[in-house]
Amino acid sequence: MDRRAEKLVVVCLAQWLRKEITMDTLEAIRRRRRVVNFTDRPIEQSAMTDILAAARWGPSAGNQQRWRFIVVTEPETKEMICDVSPGIYGTPMAIIVICMKQRARSSKWDYWIAACEVGIAAQTIALAAFSLGIGSCMVVSFAKEAVEQILDLPEGVEPSLFVTLGYHSELPEPPERLPLSEIAFEERYGKRWKA
Amino acid sequence: MDRRAEKLVVVCLAQWLRKEITMDTLEAIRRRRRVVNFTDRPIEQSAMTDILAAARWGPSAGNQQRWRFIVVTEPETKEMICDVSPGIYGTPMAIIVICMKQRARSSKWDYWIAACEVGIAAQTIALAAFSLGIGSCMVVSFAKEAVEQILDLPEGVEPSLFVTLGYHSELPEPPERLPLSEIAFEERYGKRWKA
Repeated sequence: MDRRAEKLVVVCLAQWLRKEITMDTLEAIRRRRRVVNFTDRPIEQSAMTDILAAARWGPSAGNQQRWRFIVVTEPETKEMICDVSPGIYGTPMAIIVICMKQRARSSKWDYWIAACEVGIAAQTIALAAFSLGIGSCMVVSFAKEAVEQILDLPEGVEPSLFVTLGYHSELPEPPERLPLSEIAFEERYGKRWKA
Repeated sequence: MDRRAEKLVVVCLAQWLRKEITMDTLEAIRRRRRVVNFTDRPIEQSAMTDILAAARWGPSAGNQQRWRFIVVTEPETKEMICDVSPGIYGTPMAIIVICMKQRARSSKWDYWIAACEVGIAAQTIALAAFSLGIGSCMVVSFAKEAVEQILDLPEGVEPSLFVTLGYHSELPEPPERLPLSEIAFEERYGKRWKA
């Protein structure tokens, strides 16, 4: 074995032992699935902290950081939210991504950007979680005003998207996706991307 | 070395040699930066294909897959777009994320979800690219109608967000981010998350 290979083995092993390697980025992106069947295993506080800390690192226009995250674990809170958003039924935990929309009231375009940033944060949460072996599902169907009341949200702070989280015993099959030739173009709309 | 460690070394090396390991997911999330200074090195077609293929795997409500991606490389197109969006100046390539908004006209909430999905796709692009050593910057400032004309977008198909892409020689310092205690809560808004 040459020195470079030796060094690589040492680095790989050291990172693995320190659990610094979670999952390859492209693998996490490709293998993440919508998980709705969770095991009873609770998510460790440290894993949740890693996921929440990761969520902050998505890009934010003008570094406004308009997102906030509420972790919902208590059965009573979950039950109340379930009543107004059946999508979180049976979930060990959920992160409610909320948006400081009072800062996004200037224009329709700014509203669009705030939503993009919520999506960025949600995908960051889903990928960080998946790399730690935790499945997730994004839920966009809920009664907004009821959730605002349950979570004590102040005026102008709105629930934007839920990410349910839990360990899964198996991953569902991938959903059907349009072929790249139908969704990726070069230079102009309609000129198909050649892989 | 016991058998498990031996096996791990073999797997690590094999994946590394086949370039199946790009970058750890949490590392990509934490280390990705807004890159605006790119080198002249062009992005390989195969890397762009990997990035575009990855972008499809973000979650999509009802599997609608409303996003489309236009890769802009030709100097003339870039120049025209630069005139209406200075943010892409000096960029080797850009992916214009577009949205089939004609399908998103039903309600304000559906408009919000379409934007979340654009954000999800854009962050997927940024992370996939970063794991391949390619920097990116999201650009949300552009003259929409002009871009629609330049890219021959049909009625109801709108440019939503640009992701500029290129190899970088160095990464900028991280932006300031709010501490977790100010943005993450447990159960209720304002009840700070304890890491």
